[in-house]
Amino acid sequence: MQSGFHTIAANPATRSVSILDQTLLPWQTVYRELRTLDEAAHAIRSMQVRGAPLIGVTAAFGIALALEAACDDVALDHALAVLHATRPTAVNLHWALDRMRACLHACAPSERAARAWREALSVAAEDVQTNAAIGAHGLPLLQTIAAGRDTVRVMTHCNAGWLATAAHGTALAPIYAAHAAGIAVHVWVSETRPRNQGLLTEWELRQAGVPHTFIADNSAGHLLMRGEVDIVIVGADRIAANGDAANKIGTYLKALAAHDNRVPFHVAAPLSTVDWHTTSGSAIPIEERSADEVRDVAGLGENARVASVRLLPGEVSTQNPAFDVTPARLIRSIVTERGCIAPEALGTLGPTV
Amino acid sequence: MQSGFHTIAANPATRSVSILDQTLLPWQTVYRELRTLDEAAHAIRSMQVRGAPLIGVTAAFGIALALEAACDDVALDHALAVLHATRPTAVNLHWALDRMRACLHACAPSERAARAWREALSVAAEDVQTNAAIGAHGLPLLQTIAAGRDTVRVMTHCNAGWLATAAHGTALAPIYAAHAAGIAVHVWVSETRPRNQGLLTEWELRQAGVPHTFIADNSAGHLLMRGEVDIVIVGADRIAANGDAANKIGTYLKALAAHDNRVPFHVAAPLSTVDWHTTSGSAIPIEERSADEVRDVAGLGENARVASVRLLPGEVSTQNPAFDVTPARLIRSIVTERGCIAPEALGTLGPTV
Repeated sequence: MQSGFHTIAANPATRSVSILDQTLLPWQTVYRELRTLDEAAHAIRSMQVRGAPLIGVTAAFGIALALEAACDDVALDHALAVLHATRPTAVNLHWALDRMRACLHACAPSERAARAWREALSVAAEDVQTNAAIGAHGLPLLQTIAAGRDTVRVMTHCNAGWLATAAHGTALAPIYAAHAAGIAVHVWVSETRPRNQGLLTEWELRQAGVPHTFIADNSAGHLLMRGEVDIVIVGADRIAANGDAANKIGTYLKALAAHDNRVPFHVAAPLSTVDWHTTSGSAIPIEERSADEVRDVAGLGENARVASVRLLPGEVSTQNPAFDVTPARLIRSIVTERGCIAPEALGTLGPTV
Repeated sequence: MQSGFHTIAANPATRSVSILDQTLLPWQTVYRELRTLDEAAHAIRSMQVRGAPLIGVTAAFGIALALEAACDDVALDHALAVLHATRPTAVNLHWALDRMRACLHACAPSERAARAWREALSVAAEDVQTNAAIGAHGLPLLQTIAAGRDTVRVMTHCNAGWLATAAHGTALAPIYAAHAAGIAVHVWVSETRPRNQGLLTEWELRQAGVPHTFIADNSAGHLLMRGEVDIVIVGADRIAANGDAANKIGTYLKALAAHDNRVPFHVAAPLSTVDWHTTSGSAIPIEERSADEVRDVAGLGENARVASVRLLPGEVSTQNPAFDVTPARLIRSIVTERGCIAPEALGTLGPTV
């Protein structure tokens, strides 16, 4: 489905990591080479790479890059701390760093650099497998709908496609699996203000030849009310032990509208997205991002001509939470690499998975 | 509250109508002179004037302008038809045109031009009075909240301020009344994609010195869930006899989130917004606007530099409904010039008002 593109590719021989710079999509496809810890941290912070699974993979490679410069305990702990601080909500980041920490603290400093590359490559390879499994487990949800109608109309939010992962995507994995299986799918793609990650979803679905329609975020409720949506599938950045799911800001509104119109709402995410130490969604830290993201507005026609930079004045007060929490009661299932799990049943799996 | 600006001002002596071109706000404040039926129709269609009450007032003046060119029955009926077709959802447009029709059909062609100016001026003057009354009737809602906390935190959607009317606004009228009464108010202003009417609300609140914060539409649910909102007040473009209210796309999502968090949700609108012939919201026609409005996207930083026109390619499929319907069950009251009315009690008033 990726048409020759990759989100991230590591080359331990040259001690570099290649990433597709997602801040330039869909206008340009530009790859950047990461060679240092700071470059890896910047790539995550500035959203050159984004999406909870891809952030985790990038952080793992960031440790490998850091250890090329210095590999004692101080350097390792510094690298872990720098990457840990890049973004607060996505728990896959912490999961990947915890995994790197456990693996590398157990090994002699002289062996750490090579070990870090191997472990990071494993994190990436497992992400590919995990997402393929999410696609396989989510596919029956779409097959069931396809049994009753010609086209399965899916709504998603933000980008939880292959661009958000090492491959396949999470929320889009079942869609790609259905498309590959010959099921006619149509996807409602929300702009996802303020960072417009819907443009990424539009771009990758266009590359893959999956029919879709681009809409303003505000249109979601209307389309659900008018019976234009069969199923909603979104990703997640952190899932609390009780099944509450933090995902891109605006997800909660879609979940409410799906519930109000009896349309099933599913969250697709690897089990590494579950934060077993957070008992409910209200305890999930919500990242507050730069005011500039909200102050940068679109302008049609004449507005565009008179305002070459369409940035609201600095005196305009803004607030920019990057995520919201969808309560478990609004979620039909969490589509994981182990299968579809009712959110209230999540606790029975426990942190051993 | 209008700081010397006006949305619309007619000068029968010069046979012209001056409008503030809202497509250029907040970047430029430019007035345009309307002198013909076509210019009036274009002003409504292109959203140089927008907001249900202001559309009605502009249409009334459009009839006066049309009758300056020809005032026989054919010319009158043509003008009514042209203006009627400009926008399908706002019922105030039809209300104002029905009023002009009734008044002018009853009078001799030779007297029609002068009569049309007088009637249109009455429509405008009554809109000012009506909205002042909406402000007065809505004020107690905010006073009650102010009794319990320092600042009343109001969320609105789109622009239902003085820019949407001949003066005062509808949803913002109670806010201006509270501000004038010395009550500390803070307003959450949603961007309102795809046409960004939140920029108009931000601009007029800034002119009036009312504290406010500009947010992406997607943030509304999160803020309501986290207890940052005391009351939601929006306008309406058409209210069905059962109390279902059509308003700017995205309103329904805010109503759902308000309901889910037990925050009162009110619709402020003149009774001319009620369509007594439409029994429920599902029968309200929803305007589908140009794909360009959705294809025109914001882009931050590097995106802005690489894409001087940030318009998605024409091959990108879009859908652009301009309104959605909020069911009466989610509306606490409709704030009208006659007082606050529970939506289910609307039918008892009947079309005689």
